[in-house]
Amino acid sequence: MRTYYCGDLRPQQIGETVTLYGWVDRRRDHGGVVFLDLRDRSGIVQIVSDPERTPDSYHQAEHLRNEYVVRVQGRVTRRPEDSLNPRLDTGEVEIYADEIELLNAVRKPLPFQVSATETEVVREELRMKYRYLDLRSPRMSANLQLRHQVVKAIRRYLEDGQGFIEVETPILTRSTPEGARDYLVPSRVNPGEWFALPQSPQLFKQLLMVSGFDRYYQIARCFRDEDLRADRQPEFTQLDLEMSFMSQEEILRLNEDLVCHLFQTIKGIDLPHPFPRLTYAEAMERYGSDKPDTRYGLELVDVSDLMKDSGFKVFSGAIAEGGVVKVLPIPGGNDAISNVRIKPGGDLFKEASEAGAKGLAYIRVRGAEEIDTIGAIKDNLSPEQKQELLARTQAQPGHLLLFGAGPTATVNKTLDRLRQYVAREMALIDVDAVNLLWVTDFPMFEWNAEEHRLEALHHPFTMPHPQDVADLKTARAQAYDLVYNGLEIGGGSLRIYQPELQAQVFAAIGLSDEAAQNKFGFLLEAFEYGTPPHGGIAYGLDRLVMLFMGEESIRDVIAFPKTQQARCPLTGAPSGVDDKQLKELQVTSTAKPKSLSDAP
Amino acid sequence: MRTYYCGDLRPQQIGETVTLYGWVDRRRDHGGVVFLDLRDRSGIVQIVSDPERTPDSYHQAEHLRNEYVVRVQGRVTRRPEDSLNPRLDTGEVEIYADEIELLNAVRKPLPFQVSATETEVVREELRMKYRYLDLRSPRMSANLQLRHQVVKAIRRYLEDGQGFIEVETPILTRSTPEGARDYLVPSRVNPGEWFALPQSPQLFKQLLMVSGFDRYYQIARCFRDEDLRADRQPEFTQLDLEMSFMSQEEILRLNEDLVCHLFQTIKGIDLPHPFPRLTYAEAMERYGSDKPDTRYGLELVDVSDLMKDSGFKVFSGAIAEGGVVKVLPIPGGNDAISNVRIKPGGDLFKEASEAGAKGLAYIRVRGAEEIDTIGAIKDNLSPEQKQELLARTQAQPGHLLLFGAGPTATVNKTLDRLRQYVAREMALIDVDAVNLLWVTDFPMFEWNAEEHRLEALHHPFTMPHPQDVADLKTARAQAYDLVYNGLEIGGGSLRIYQPELQAQVFAAIGLSDEAAQNKFGFLLEAFEYGTPPHGGIAYGLDRLVMLFMGEESIRDVIAFPKTQQARCPLTGAPSGVDDKQLKELQVTSTAKPKSLSDAP
Repeated sequence: MRTYYCGDLRPQQIGETVTLYGWVDRRRDHGGVVFLDLRDRSGIVQIVSDPERTPDSYHQAEHLRNEYVVRVQGRVTRRPEDSLNPRLDTGEVEIYADEIELLNAVRKPLPFQVSATETEVVREELRMKYRYLDLRSPRMSANLQLRHQVVKAIRRYLEDGQGFIEVETPILTRSTPEGARDYLVPSRVNPGEWFALPQSPQLFKQLLMVSGFDRYYQIARCFRDEDLRADRQPEFTQLDLEMSFMSQEEILRLNEDLVCHLFQTIKGIDLPHPFPRLTYAEAMERYGSDKPDTRYGLELVDVSDLMKDSGFKVFSGAIAEGGVVKVLPIPGGNDAISNVRIKPGGDLFKEASEAGAKGLAYIRVRGAEEIDTIGAIKDNLSPEQKQELLARTQAQPGHLLLFGAGPTATVNKTLDRLRQYVAREMALIDVDAVNLLWVTDFPMFEWNAEEHRLEALHHPFTMPHPQDVADLKTARAQAYDLVYNGLEIGGGSLRIYQPELQAQVFAAIGLSDEAAQNKFGFLLEAFEYGTPPHGGIAYGLDRLVMLFMGEESIRDVIAFPKTQQARCPLTGAPSGVDDKQLKELQVTSTAKPKSLSDAP
Repeated sequence: MRTYYCGDLRPQQIGETVTLYGWVDRRRDHGGVVFLDLRDRSGIVQIVSDPERTPDSYHQAEHLRNEYVVRVQGRVTRRPEDSLNPRLDTGEVEIYADEIELLNAVRKPLPFQVSATETEVVREELRMKYRYLDLRSPRMSANLQLRHQVVKAIRRYLEDGQGFIEVETPILTRSTPEGARDYLVPSRVNPGEWFALPQSPQLFKQLLMVSGFDRYYQIARCFRDEDLRADRQPEFTQLDLEMSFMSQEEILRLNEDLVCHLFQTIKGIDLPHPFPRLTYAEAMERYGSDKPDTRYGLELVDVSDLMKDSGFKVFSGAIAEGGVVKVLPIPGGNDAISNVRIKPGGDLFKEASEAGAKGLAYIRVRGAEEIDTIGAIKDNLSPEQKQELLARTQAQPGHLLLFGAGPTATVNKTLDRLRQYVAREMALIDVDAVNLLWVTDFPMFEWNAEEHRLEALHHPFTMPHPQDVADLKTARAQAYDLVYNGLEIGGGSLRIYQPELQAQVFAAIGLSDEAAQNKFGFLLEAFEYGTPPHGGIAYGLDRLVMLFMGEESIRDVIAFPKTQQARCPLTGAPSGVDDKQLKELQVTSTAKPKSLSDAP
């Protein structure tokens, strides 16, 4: 029986006889003495096998190769002074092996090296095909172990201090086409009918509030059949919370405590709290984004009023058409950013135009009153306007002012993008900073230009602000997102619990009574029978773990992820299936058979 | 903000002003004073509203009806001596309500009463349609809360003392048709191909061992598209464990500790351990079952050797054809069980024939040497045989001996069934007893008479006994089941980790190399790269919670279960879906459209 994990051995164990199990991370032969790095999930320890001191194990050690599985029994010894290894947690000790038992060999050439000392970058498709080898690497092993620690810390916080109960909600459920596409599952027992995999447990968690469970949580698997973007997976994991009888403020406070507990437990960081709060309107005004990265400044300044009568038609025209003119002031931008980069063909121009901007006006501040820009701007700026502009943007000599002019959404998108780009380019981001903030008061609806109708920004069960009920179309929602260094990690809302208000909201988005009944009838009916005030939040667990580990892809914190083509290179899923299976299900594929050359 | 849950109030809180939230369980008007039972997930407390002492709340209280949602603020008071309620945990106190705020009303007639005092039995289909009301009942609320406690106790035991790591394995995976039918999910991105929902995480947990995770667990959702029996659900939850570098004995001991911890935590029962162990052969011999209920005796006795030359051809013929003759001796059976019940038309005969028996021979023991039976048996039994029979079955006057004669499997099935039936009928079962035992050494294979081939009893990765490798066809497996009062609650095995042995096992079940590669190629390949010895176990969590709660259906410990027709009466799943959805997926149903009269 194992007595220690490899990575746990320390000078305290010197003199003990220990039994270890693990994989040969590497094997070196130094003048007849064999050194093995033995690896298990906890780390690595050095094993020594010496033909004179440990003849029994030496014969076995000689024949070991990388990734062989062994049992080692031996004495923990202090390493000689000259071979201490401070980079290894176990670097003060080594094990003189009395016995080495080969438990299993490697029988084929390894597709890639998994040793802790290996630095070669392996392409991701290959790593995913041999995921079981990839997961042996210290990096991936640590990622999954930390993921477990995160989930464990979340559960214990919610259960022990806060009285949350975990309830499992169904995976085989009803299709309610809202948001993304559903994954569908044909029912054999009820031919012609389909289950859907849940995009979130939203409806069930609200039903649990109607049931009186009061504080529910779940580490919930969710499914969205989307065209995959870099950071999405067909199935993903969500920390899902719902609470009754709590105000928005109480919900935010509880979640702040949870997040602070997590950062303390996982990262050893004490976060200041309460977290700063920005309304959606403020966030858009100051950052052009509803998930601003506040680790650096570069706040936007709206100068529309100043420019509305400007002779520079790009500015005044934009405002006349209902748009805005906003400035991104960049301290030190004069030196850092050349004109070439701002003009067509330059990298800043490219960022701006990818966000929808047609051009990128700028002013360089040279002295107290001295600016550099194109004639059309300079000539149309009165001394008072110039002074006011410089005052509002707090411009100092050396500042570069970048302008966005046009429809509000485009200007915000452009300057948000430029703001982030410039911050990265000019290394303005404190990479050790941890900035968390709430964005609140989202609008209830956004305009769907294609369908010429309002649609719910979060979902149609979101509660409007009490002051805004009279004019729902422009109402703010009691909805909130938690933003971590510019990324949304959680979002939620209070929910409507009065059928009358729910009906008004459906009317606002043009959903007829009949359509609402058809889609959500069972939930609306539930609300008739004594529904408590309630609200909740959901966090993207994969993303949260990714951020904790400093990884750039959620695939690196998921044990068995799918590729961006929604495939699993390891198992070959999805795959063809037996005709017999489809026949029993009474379904058939209408896809044209793939030619052999299309096969994966 | 809530200061207490209703059910937590005790005399210690007398004098405190408290804020409670909950549902009106019932309302009584006693001479102008209104009494409310206020219910939340924790229990019930009595609220008093008196026009003289608490006039503000009285007006509100008058208008409340069952299941209205309210906030109550009031003072905790000792109940008058004559209204103490010892049946209620909060029965020594009541709350004089200063304020009652109506948060939400019930707007439609309740489909059934959910009050804690309600005793009417509601049909299950209706309970499931209004599951959110059903879950308000103290019984169902307690079931789900206990389920949470069970999961919590399991997690903490495995994480804190034993170093297990939870890893999430995929829900969208590859179809490996083995055992039950898979649920399939069409892939939109890869048309013509399908994902399958996992029947268990078996392959992934073995891959995690290859990855070095060493001790894995998961509370895992599993899916089987079966024709539903009483105690099955299309999706169910499994506690799934896998461990490396442990012997079978070490695995059993660890699991005993886990189960003892659970019984201690959840039921306050200290189980004796190690648990008794029976080999499969012993269990079949003594109980005719691989999951014997050992809370009572009634052990079977094999008398084949005694009867092989009997003139009673039913006995000797059965043995001549390779079968057996076994006896179920029933102490006190003479008085308890009449001949009518044993003969055709009787209840015992019916049990026996449903198990496949053609008849049911018996002997009644009257005195030391005196027996009563049909002539054909009596006349063919020598005095020595009779004496030996009575000695072996430890028969005393008053015993009834029931005989099974025929093929071994049929005899065992018959006598197992009769044994259980008689124990229930004669009230021989100590309902408070908790008997846990391991059944070990299952056979590797069973004969599939339809397909004329051996098939794996557990699954084809199960490790044979080292002594039995030479003749795999009759080999015992290193497999084990945990049996709790006659029900299997968990089962597992050591796994094969050497490719050579795996190939032999595939050969034994007639699986060609090509077919094996096709089905399990990725797992077999993984085994080439340094696989540790490993093994595991899985527990049916729904069943375990059901047994803890003394429920008779797993549907009563699942928040949102499916009916036996695999439907969800609440959401209406499965359902028809938009043609657009199917078109995008490039699938179509070949089922005939249902006529309207078929609609659910």
